[in-house]
Amino acid sequence: MKVNISEIRERCENIFLKVGLKKEDAKIITDVLLQTEMRGVFTHGFFRVPNYVNCIKSGGIKKGGEFTVVSDTPSWALVDGNDNLGIVIAYKAMRLAIEKAKQYGIGVVNVRGSHHFGAAGYYTSMCANENMIGMSMSNGDVLIAATGSKVRTIGNNPFSFATPAGKYDKIVYDIAMSHTSDKKVVKMAKEGKQLPDGWLIDKNGVPTNDPNEYEKGGTLMPFGGYKGYGFAMMVEILAAVLSGAAVTNDVHAWNTNSEKGGNVGHLFIAMDISRISDEQIFNNTIENMISGIKNSEKAVGTEEIYFPGEIENNKYRLAIENGFIEIDDDTMASIAEIEKTL
Amino acid sequence: MKVNISEIRERCENIFLKVGLKKEDAKIITDVLLQTEMRGVFTHGFFRVPNYVNCIKSGGIKKGGEFTVVSDTPSWALVDGNDNLGIVIAYKAMRLAIEKAKQYGIGVVNVRGSHHFGAAGYYTSMCANENMIGMSMSNGDVLIAATGSKVRTIGNNPFSFATPAGKYDKIVYDIAMSHTSDKKVVKMAKEGKQLPDGWLIDKNGVPTNDPNEYEKGGTLMPFGGYKGYGFAMMVEILAAVLSGAAVTNDVHAWNTNSEKGGNVGHLFIAMDISRISDEQIFNNTIENMISGIKNSEKAVGTEEIYFPGEIENNKYRLAIENGFIEIDDDTMASIAEIEKTL
Repeated sequence: MKVNISEIRERCENIFLKVGLKKEDAKIITDVLLQTEMRGVFTHGFFRVPNYVNCIKSGGIKKGGEFTVVSDTPSWALVDGNDNLGIVIAYKAMRLAIEKAKQYGIGVVNVRGSHHFGAAGYYTSMCANENMIGMSMSNGDVLIAATGSKVRTIGNNPFSFATPAGKYDKIVYDIAMSHTSDKKVVKMAKEGKQLPDGWLIDKNGVPTNDPNEYEKGGTLMPFGGYKGYGFAMMVEILAAVLSGAAVTNDVHAWNTNSEKGGNVGHLFIAMDISRISDEQIFNNTIENMISGIKNSEKAVGTEEIYFPGEIENNKYRLAIENGFIEIDDDTMASIAEIEKTL
Repeated sequence: MKVNISEIRERCENIFLKVGLKKEDAKIITDVLLQTEMRGVFTHGFFRVPNYVNCIKSGGIKKGGEFTVVSDTPSWALVDGNDNLGIVIAYKAMRLAIEKAKQYGIGVVNVRGSHHFGAAGYYTSMCANENMIGMSMSNGDVLIAATGSKVRTIGNNPFSFATPAGKYDKIVYDIAMSHTSDKKVVKMAKEGKQLPDGWLIDKNGVPTNDPNEYEKGGTLMPFGGYKGYGFAMMVEILAAVLSGAAVTNDVHAWNTNSEKGGNVGHLFIAMDISRISDEQIFNNTIENMISGIKNSEKAVGTEEIYFPGEIENNKYRLAIENGFIEIDDDTMASIAEIEKTL
């Protein structure tokens, strides 16, 4: 259904105020969910509100909104989220990285004691909006198979990179490590479709193209085979091993074990472009790169070649113009349900 | 054929001394090629000697071995390789990043005016050997298709991440952005094999499983579809756009246009683990992560689950034990040929 942007912002803020968050923190999580929804990434938008509320009510997510600085150097800090809301901790950690980058060129912030941080691309977009390059990543509960395993061995570890892109606004690369989400596999099974090679293994670890095998005990595979597996491991190490957070099987599934803190780890990097490059030259170069790729010869059946995040940039602009967004009926029903119980 | 390690080291150093490199620089390129060969990555070992020699003789690679510092902050520098040998410049740039990390925790060095830098994993291994986490990346001449294009639009942009790993020595993730190399596709065509989905598009940009389409004008695809395409673009931006190096179509193919400098860009990152973590805790955590994954239930047909770089670590240890390595006969013949002409 169509929902007015100001209205949903106010309603979402109220929900988080009523479950006990401070005003500042309720505003932060609302902005993250809203902007993510406006970019069309509905899997990390308001759809998640019941999960966060449930974890807060059950005690797995604490109501405070501050992290503790564990160690600090000019360009690099480690902070502990104290089991507070992952999105709020992540936002504040990236702000710290940006402040460090403003002072020292580069800011890196490792986080432990955090929780599901929502859309990785929100935090890197914060950098792009300040003429910085940003990276963000997080580990999570085990979800995908390592190459050669037949069970879930490592998280779907989201990773994002963003950069300002002159007249193209910004590039926002925001991925998880499986080829596709479990939901899409289940949907393809219902539609009688076959999966491409490499997306799924069955319960014996044998590659399969049949999406029905997922619900029979199959496991999602990392994108691109062993290259995606290694990428997931890199994120696990940078976000969790380095931060002293929980690793692989020690991470609690955030939406199935709502009473326990997840001790999830993140890493945020901000790089102030102006320290080593001229803003105008950087923008010209990136514009030329993008237009070269977009104007290259297209494959049969391709109408437009996109850069990472371009489709989401377009959706965001449209939402601003319209003043409303389309939100899934079930999502809106669950939000109304929460409002009633609070 | 079996080749004694000390012997091939001496012969390779002599070749580069004779084409005009300083002793220090001849030692550096030889060590990079030798260690890469010892790790079994023959595509980036001595096989490449004729290319480097050819470019040096033709003038595309200069004989100096120093970079110029363009800008410098405590944790971040930009250097210009002045068209010198990419491997030597890359080695010295990573040394600078490591020195910065020793002083300030994190060291980042952008490079422009460089050339083909060989195996990305060599430079990150330098970090792992000093109890640091390392990242290295480079752009290159266009080789793979963007999602939706039917022609080569972006480089195969190598990327590496490495970390010390306690009793497991080190993790070295070292990839290029195509699913597989052009050589492997041609080999599969000869063997009458089919390609997995997503590896290749034909000359019209239509996905194909027939490896014969490659030599009919097909183009290699990034691994993992649009996720690999975005990863390639991230490397292009960090290594080249940010560094002020040549971008996409402006990069000269290093082995087809040997008279011109490639103006390739790189990025090197070194992070001193001890600044935010205890070495023993870090090693224990990473050992537990690795053993958990290696000991997880295996897929049918899998004898061992490996972490990134483990197979290469094993080959390296074997080479040290043996005192010799297997080098391709053709490679040794081309080295003997070069020795005759010098």
